[in-house]
Amino acid sequence: MKHVRSISEIGTEGVVRILRTARHMEAVNSRPVPKVPALVGRTVVSLFFEDSTRTRISFETAARRLSADTVNFSVSTSSLNKGESLRDTIETVSAMGAAVFVVRHRTSGVPWQISEWTDASIVNAGDGWHQHPTQALLDCYTVMARRGLDPSPECLVGLRIAIVGDSRHSRVARSCLEAFSGLGAEVVLVGPATLLPPDTTSWTVSTSTSLDDVLPEVDVVYMLRMQRERMNEALVPDLAEYSRRFGLDETRWSRTRPDTLLMHPGPMNRGVEMMFDPSSTTQSAIIDQVTHGISVRMAVLFELLASGDEVPS
Amino acid sequence: MKHVRSISEIGTEGVVRILRTARHMEAVNSRPVPKVPALVGRTVVSLFFEDSTRTRISFETAARRLSADTVNFSVSTSSLNKGESLRDTIETVSAMGAAVFVVRHRTSGVPWQISEWTDASIVNAGDGWHQHPTQALLDCYTVMARRGLDPSPECLVGLRIAIVGDSRHSRVARSCLEAFSGLGAEVVLVGPATLLPPDTTSWTVSTSTSLDDVLPEVDVVYMLRMQRERMNEALVPDLAEYSRRFGLDETRWSRTRPDTLLMHPGPMNRGVEMMFDPSSTTQSAIIDQVTHGISVRMAVLFELLASGDEVPS
Amino acid sequence: MKHVRSISEIGTEGVVRILRTARHMEAVNSRPVPKVPALVGRTVVSLFFEDSTRTRISFETAARRLSADTVNFSVSTSSLNKGESLRDTIETVSAMGAAVFVVRHRTSGVPWQISEWTDASIVNAGDGWHQHPTQALLDCYTVMARRGLDPSPECLVGLRIAIVGDSRHSRVARSCLEAFSGLGAEVVLVGPATLLPPDTTSWTVSTSTSLDDVLPEVDVVYMLRMQRERMNEALVPDLAEYSRRFGLDETRWSRTRPDTLLMHPGPMNRGVEMMFDPSSTTQSAIIDQVTHGISVRMAVLFELLASGDEVPS
Repeated sequence: MKHVRSISEIGTEGVVRILRTARHMEAVNSRPVPKVPALVGRTVVSLFFEDSTRTRISFETAARRLSADTVNFSVSTSSLNKGESLRDTIETVSAMGAAVFVVRHRTSGVPWQISEWTDASIVNAGDGWHQHPTQALLDCYTVMARRGLDPSPECLVGLRIAIVGDSRHSRVARSCLEAFSGLGAEVVLVGPATLLPPDTTSWTVSTSTSLDDVLPEVDVVYMLRMQRERMNEALVPDLAEYSRRFGLDETRWSRTRPDTLLMHPGPMNRGVEMMFDPSSTTQSAIIDQVTHGISVRMAVLFELLASGDEVPS
Repeated sequence: MKHVRSISEIGTEGVVRILRTARHMEAVNSRPVPKVPALVGRTVVSLFFEDSTRTRISFETAARRLSADTVNFSVSTSSLNKGESLRDTIETVSAMGAAVFVVRHRTSGVPWQISEWTDASIVNAGDGWHQHPTQALLDCYTVMARRGLDPSPECLVGLRIAIVGDSRHSRVARSCLEAFSGLGAEVVLVGPATLLPPDTTSWTVSTSTSLDDVLPEVDVVYMLRMQRERMNEALVPDLAEYSRRFGLDETRWSRTRPDTLLMHPGPMNRGVEMMFDPSSTTQSAIIDQVTHGISVRMAVLFELLASGDEVPS
Repeated sequence: MKHVRSISEIGTEGVVRILRTARHMEAVNSRPVPKVPALVGRTVVSLFFEDSTRTRISFETAARRLSADTVNFSVSTSSLNKGESLRDTIETVSAMGAAVFVVRHRTSGVPWQISEWTDASIVNAGDGWHQHPTQALLDCYTVMARRGLDPSPECLVGLRIAIVGDSRHSRVARSCLEAFSGLGAEVVLVGPATLLPPDTTSWTVSTSTSLDDVLPEVDVVYMLRMQRERMNEALVPDLAEYSRRFGLDETRWSRTRPDTLLMHPGPMNRGVEMMFDPSSTTQSAIIDQVTHGISVRMAVLFELLASGDEVPS
């Protein structure tokens, strides 16, 4: 495995391999000293063109638990337009010995462009509306762990997962859809018609504009973060109307089955898509997602840099 | 010991325990390799809502000397008002495995609020006008070290300590007063009446509005940083007048006894409360305070995370 | 060796010693685990008053490969004017146990001023137009490595090196000139008369205002970064005219000998001094400069903090 830029790039086989390695990492993380020397001397560079403290800290924590060194290359948005200079930056940091670049950028495809300029591995930590593969991997891991399943190419067969919100503009939705489907789950995208992908005929997915219809029938309710800027684009009339139809409150949540899981990639927009406190229900796996994120990102870094070595456990 | 949020929370017993552990840490710091593996794999998160490079670096250095990992979660002041989102942030970083949050916030009580949202330990690195316990601990340690005393519940008995300046609005003054008194010292608050606490009847402390009267009688002169914003609030007429009455210059300092210690929590407002160069006198313990700060903060982190383990020495 | 603030301070003997140690460090860096415990427990503080992510990351990477701890003390330009407060900052960070300050400042001489306030070692990472010694050291190392030479006081004898651009206002030019000349190379400064040093009679250097004349005769073409602010000072008529006479394009470059090296300290001003892609020619040593920068800065830190210890290899 050279890069983790999209779910399709690593395929179901890659997904399963990472999930299996993540189990070993979870065992490491449950030890009194959750640290292994697997990546001593390797440098993981965070290259975030969009702010995301939580994702950056998750990757940095994962890197350090494998004893890698971390470098935070903070980039102001203004550097965005200097294509040539981005290349020089990548070549320079690469020449200093970077082993992995963890890249977040508002433009789709940037992680692929960057990989043409360096021999280092690239992890896509979110590019535009396109992909956010480690989020999807940690989400698969979380569903699997909560259901007591073992990682395998068909481990999610029989599960029905609703992804609720703006799936048209969401890299999280795109990656999750591919990852969940790849492991056999049946995915339904739920949201107002304006926020559903315009053409899903080539996807193995169904759609619905009624959350209330879907809620009682699914095993997982995966809420997306509502981007407030969609309002300006007139894709949704107003947030109150959106919340009324697609926000989760206690009454609506009470219509799910007792074993249905509640998930959200964070950060939550409380009062918009999330109108009750998810920590009030044991069905919420939202905190599990964050915790498993460390194990899964450790697994990604390990597979990129130390694949073939004995997995720590 | 679960948290270090105030001096009263840990009590005199806790203060003494930390001072004793700090002695072992000072021994570690005097070694050629001042690093011990006590906290390998534990993560210390700095959560500073007010800038304070020196305090943050002191904690980070302390954490690394115990081999802990450090994460700097820098927060813009604007996040202050999103109460709900602060909770989500704490829960998220906590789920990534934070063992300690080191918190500075301009509002009193925030460290207590945060501890309701996480199982991690909280160290208060300054909340509003309220408390700054590790500053007080390192100050006790410094007095003790300079006087050749051993840590004990009454180790400062017989010493008279003047805290000079705006004790009404100072978290440093509040924590120091409690810590010094708790170990038996007699504390006198010195400053203009407008900057002394309005009612000290319940405190075991005396007050004075004349620095000149107090100077010859005390063992320690603890200068507070004068906050320039007090001028706007009309609590002091002007800085020049303040300096004339409560600033230290060489003439005034020469009236102290030869063994009187000069202390300041930093950063100094030169030309305001400090009108001569303290490094010109061997009575100054200001640099000692900074140095001992590392040992004392190592002791705090050790007591929170590894209490019961053998103390490194 | 106590400080590395200028090339003349360390002398040719110091230059050679660092180059020799850097060879051992290059061997370390070529190992699967490029990390040695030489500086465990030592703290390297970056004190950058001018932004320079690439230089800061290079030093931090070097420090970590020697297992030192790194602290990044970011300073806003506004702190510049508070001379007294800079002193307090240095004394404070020093009291926390800093072993080395890596300093960049827009004013010449600041690294010397700082060394009066601390016992820590100072590495000058660029002061005004004055010096940038580690850049010159890595440049010497790169020339040596590409030519298959061994470090010695006369290892560059017989080589002719052109430094092209604004050598009048360049700390890189100043340090490189001294270092190259010190090892026996013949240096020619090339640029418009307004950007050449006004008086070079005391320097062992020649000057030329014609790049085309010089190009076929030199072993190394060292391009300086053109500072756009020189335009405002009316020292060059316009950038297009500057590029026409002193910029490198493919046609011009083709007039060099096949073994002439192309170097640049970065970041390149593409379209100004660099009008073709240097990665198109194997004569470019620009990426080598960055890579060797790690080894050379490791050598500098090692010589400052662990000189006399066995060099890792």
